[in-house]
Amino acid sequence: MSAPSTPPAVYQRRIDRVREEMVARDIDVVMVSVGHDLPYLTGYLAMPLERLTMLVLPRDADATLLVPELEAPRVVEQPGVFTVHPWGELTDPIELVAKLSAGASRVAVGDQMWARFLVELLPHLPGTEYTRAVDVIGPLRVVKDAVEIDALRAAGAAADRVAAQLHAGEIPLVGRTESAVSNDISARLVAEGHDKVNFAIVAAGANAASPHHHASDRVIGAGEIVLCDFGGTMADYCSDITRCVFTGDVPAEIADAYAVLHEAQAASVAAATVGTPCEDVDRAARAVIAAAGHADHFIHRTGHGIGLEEHEDPYIVEGNHTALVAGHAFSIEPGIYVPGRWGMRLEDIVVAADDGPDPLNHADHALVSVDA
Amino acid sequence: MSAPSTPPAVYQRRIDRVREEMVARDIDVVMVSVGHDLPYLTGYLAMPLERLTMLVLPRDADATLLVPELEAPRVVEQPGVFTVHPWGELTDPIELVAKLSAGASRVAVGDQMWARFLVELLPHLPGTEYTRAVDVIGPLRVVKDAVEIDALRAAGAAADRVAAQLHAGEIPLVGRTESAVSNDISARLVAEGHDKVNFAIVAAGANAASPHHHASDRVIGAGEIVLCDFGGTMADYCSDITRCVFTGDVPAEIADAYAVLHEAQAASVAAATVGTPCEDVDRAARAVIAAAGHADHFIHRTGHGIGLEEHEDPYIVEGNHTALVAGHAFSIEPGIYVPGRWGMRLEDIVVAADDGPDPLNHADHALVSVDA
Repeated sequence: MSAPSTPPAVYQRRIDRVREEMVARDIDVVMVSVGHDLPYLTGYLAMPLERLTMLVLPRDADATLLVPELEAPRVVEQPGVFTVHPWGELTDPIELVAKLSAGASRVAVGDQMWARFLVELLPHLPGTEYTRAVDVIGPLRVVKDAVEIDALRAAGAAADRVAAQLHAGEIPLVGRTESAVSNDISARLVAEGHDKVNFAIVAAGANAASPHHHASDRVIGAGEIVLCDFGGTMADYCSDITRCVFTGDVPAEIADAYAVLHEAQAASVAAATVGTPCEDVDRAARAVIAAAGHADHFIHRTGHGIGLEEHEDPYIVEGNHTALVAGHAFSIEPGIYVPGRWGMRLEDIVVAADDGPDPLNHADHALVSVDA
Repeated sequence: MSAPSTPPAVYQRRIDRVREEMVARDIDVVMVSVGHDLPYLTGYLAMPLERLTMLVLPRDADATLLVPELEAPRVVEQPGVFTVHPWGELTDPIELVAKLSAGASRVAVGDQMWARFLVELLPHLPGTEYTRAVDVIGPLRVVKDAVEIDALRAAGAAADRVAAQLHAGEIPLVGRTESAVSNDISARLVAEGHDKVNFAIVAAGANAASPHHHASDRVIGAGEIVLCDFGGTMADYCSDITRCVFTGDVPAEIADAYAVLHEAQAASVAAATVGTPCEDVDRAARAVIAAAGHADHFIHRTGHGIGLEEHEDPYIVEGNHTALVAGHAFSIEPGIYVPGRWGMRLEDIVVAADDGPDPLNHADHALVSVDA
């Protein structure tokens, strides 16, 4: 949910700009439900439950926020911006949506809306064409204003403080399970100011070779790489950082690979200038890793946008020709993964700015050796 | 994710039964993505992220689990049940879905699949009719077998132990914020064996009149009702319990209302016999509350099903004519809410069984007075 102090004028301005995009793209109605387009436009984050919450935003009529009656008290009304329409247990909310959208030729729906509601809506609006609301709202959300960048910077600084605790050996590793360390990191994210922890991946040794490994009951040993990728939400905006540490002296093979990774990450950050296509930022990291013979060991995109959501546009990936503009915020997180043996990743959040890439994370980028 | 020890035969049996339902309902392809139909059928819980994970289950061909390449290591393969098809960053997974579904006239999609993927699929399969996969899979999932009921019972007992700590005054209330108490309850749910906390609503005084109030910075005072509604997931299955306590001596008005609530909840539990329509179980609670003059203060359904998900079929609500069968598991949680003043709710999980309603929660049902 956006800060309660955000004035209605902010939401009104965003909705006005959505309507401009709707005109440009010939969209009659925008429907947003669960996910973060809704708080961006209304300040209200829907509960991801089976009862429909939906902002129905016709191009040429007033906006209506349909909300389950028993969740209505959670809505902070934004006078003049939208009408709250609580619906009771015996109402079919899809009929309300259909009525508010009658005659629409083209409807744009939110990405994370439950497919159930679209399936139910289809027979109500025969002949209607559907498209993704992200095409309309995304271009607005992807460019962060100064207030949003400040919020991302504050969240990044809080994550950095936890990374510093990891580097300083204040988070015991050897002899604890990955899960225990994950819980420890989570508690520290909250202690440093996050409202919510989104993830705290802790992957030791061979587990680190699975990029989305979470945290298991495996006990961390001496002489292992420990990959920690964690982030949360602070005053509505997300943090996301990855640092690896080594429990003991770093063997040459690992040190050599990490040097490649470190260079790749720095090259990618340096490439993230305004005007550069996203895919070129990806290529900058990939070229360094490939040159060192690890092309097949870097099996994911270099990064993702970040803001109200942990993963959003712009994606730093081959095929994304979008040129960076000032205000784009995204992760740069190349990795090297050798299945069955070890993995490593290094991640900062970076904002594209007119005077060059502006990294929001400053925690030590080295593979720090922590006492076994 | 289902327990890794669940044998492939369990999933094969479930998929076979889905195929029988597909024949009966003339469904050509079932598509399930995020949500709990997927772990029910495959043992794998998809990450709710922007990369598509989907089980494509044609009636007359082998099942394929499409999974993002970097999440593929998380999948526990079930030999013979489905083929895992990891897709790389440069692939359009919707084209794979369309290819696997070519020629389908009727497709059933999972409720919680992101609408984005259905929007993208629509132009690939012109003329295809869509329906909800819950119609196919729901009838299977809604009837819990003995192993599932044991898991629900164990989760309920763990939640009961936290409720007992609340009743015993072991969870300090007065002078703490609702949020602090919520965190305390969450930690205790985990300590009692839950793998994950799903929610820990703490609502004091007038906040308790908002049924989905979560927990705020409001400090709990003496002489207040404190509504605590909490639950989590333990070995894949959910708990959910609500108990209210009062910080000090209970005033007559509150005591009288609570007596009504207690009677209503007990009447509803007693009504939950095999063969009884769900709406009659709702009416049993509602009649008691209405007779006491609080009809307008009970603004939600009496309950929801529970299992792998915290909210699932069967819903205990007016209009649901479904007759209870042995193995249905659901909450019974009437409430009385007086806006601006106070609210109260009393909730147990109950399983319909051939020898009568089988409540899974046994924590004291009284409005316990805890020391101010």
